[in-house]
Amino acid sequence: MEKLTLVKVGGKIVEEPQSLKQLLSDFSKIEGYKVLVHGGGRSATAMGSKLGIDSKMVNGRRVTDEEMLKVVTMVYGGLVNKQIVAGLQAVDVNALGLTGADMNYMRSEKRPVKEVDYGFVGDVKEVNAGLLADLIAKGVVPVLAPLTHDKEGNLLNTNADTIAGEAAKALAKHFDVTLVYCFEKKGVLMDENDDESVIPELTPALYNKYVADGIISGGMIPKLDNSFEALYAGVKEVVITRADLIHTEGGTKIVL
Amino acid sequence: MEKLTLVKVGGKIVEEPQSLKQLLSDFSKIEGYKVLVHGGGRSATAMGSKLGIDSKMVNGRRVTDEEMLKVVTMVYGGLVNKQIVAGLQAVDVNALGLTGADMNYMRSEKRPVKEVDYGFVGDVKEVNAGLLADLIAKGVVPVLAPLTHDKEGNLLNTNADTIAGEAAKALAKHFDVTLVYCFEKKGVLMDENDDESVIPELTPALYNKYVADGIISGGMIPKLDNSFEALYAGVKEVVITRADLIHTEGGTKIVL
Repeated sequence: MEKLTLVKVGGKIVEEPQSLKQLLSDFSKIEGYKVLVHGGGRSATAMGSKLGIDSKMVNGRRVTDEEMLKVVTMVYGGLVNKQIVAGLQAVDVNALGLTGADMNYMRSEKRPVKEVDYGFVGDVKEVNAGLLADLIAKGVVPVLAPLTHDKEGNLLNTNADTIAGEAAKALAKHFDVTLVYCFEKKGVLMDENDDESVIPELTPALYNKYVADGIISGGMIPKLDNSFEALYAGVKEVVITRADLIHTEGGTKIVL
Repeated sequence: MEKLTLVKVGGKIVEEPQSLKQLLSDFSKIEGYKVLVHGGGRSATAMGSKLGIDSKMVNGRRVTDEEMLKVVTMVYGGLVNKQIVAGLQAVDVNALGLTGADMNYMRSEKRPVKEVDYGFVGDVKEVNAGLLADLIAKGVVPVLAPLTHDKEGNLLNTNADTIAGEAAKALAKHFDVTLVYCFEKKGVLMDENDDESVIPELTPALYNKYVADGIISGGMIPKLDNSFEALYAGVKEVVITRADLIHTEGGTKIVL
């Protein structure tokens, strides 16, 4: 199978013109088939606030009421996504911006209300990667916004890390997928106070050892658990790296 | 060649939930390959005004400064386009929302400043309909927002009638295209005071006669000139009709 690199970048990088320009240039240098997944939370918060709509976060996740859904639809699906697409076209990357509703590529269901009512937030239920894979094979580069739909007419706000993981797993049936998560550090660190102490490769055995030894802890654990889950579901390799290193061999490689 | 119906609807119909729902239901009943082109001007004006950005119109066209470009990118490319796409998916139409930047399907150039500086408004220069035609043949239904790009990183505001005409002409190389313009009346009228006096068919000879006789006048003339221009460029048939009649045989057929 051909290699495909799926890069997920957070909102911050794509929301500032200078860092966005650098990212698009770095991304354009990645050889072979590729996909970009982006966030946009800061822009949504800023736009909401301009419109008098307060952002409410619970456990780091946005509570999305009807008015906030309109804001994220505009900001993620319109402003951020289309600016990235136009920017990539300028560096000769044949980008195509998508939400989960487009070609019904990612269907979700509104998250059931338990302790928290997250509102119009979607849990992914089905990924239809066939048409996407055809387009990729023709040189098209999908740019995925953090929005899905329920196939009943509703768009749903969906975490960009989740979009990246689910798209990577579905595309793994068609390509050898490397899933790249961008992070503020150069990779997973042996010593959190030493930015150069990047762990070059993590296997399940090494990961378990580092967790037991307290070297890996906190927010890195769910991130790595998700990475291993993607690998068990068929993704070839997960890389955690810094956005400016996506076109290099740097970062932490996570493999089985 | 297979038949393709390309329907252009104005903003008003897609901006109100009830009329949008009816439109999507009517549109879903059109048999065979199809494309939808939408406006969104009223929503852009309303959103701009909420954000303290005044809409300035000259000769019925929007002056698009940098801040207004962000608004139309959000509203046309995000809010309106994605709500239509999600709505079509709910009625089993495999919609795909696009701006001209997506797959570089429509490239434009910023309109030169003459008497009026329209700002970030694009005049269409190139339509790449190949990938679009492939997708349509696979059952995908493109939903085109009134935005193009200059391939230098800038999105440009572009009149939806123009998008419809240019897309129809480019797709005419791949399909027998019927271009449907929705209008507030049932078609071109013999008597403007009689809504039922629809002219069933207009040829160039009949058109010239009706113009000479004063039966057709005013804003209908540029609309019909554009329609004939599309026909001379390869479009099979242009229909002017009311949005609720798009799935019927009603309206005025314009043919060579």
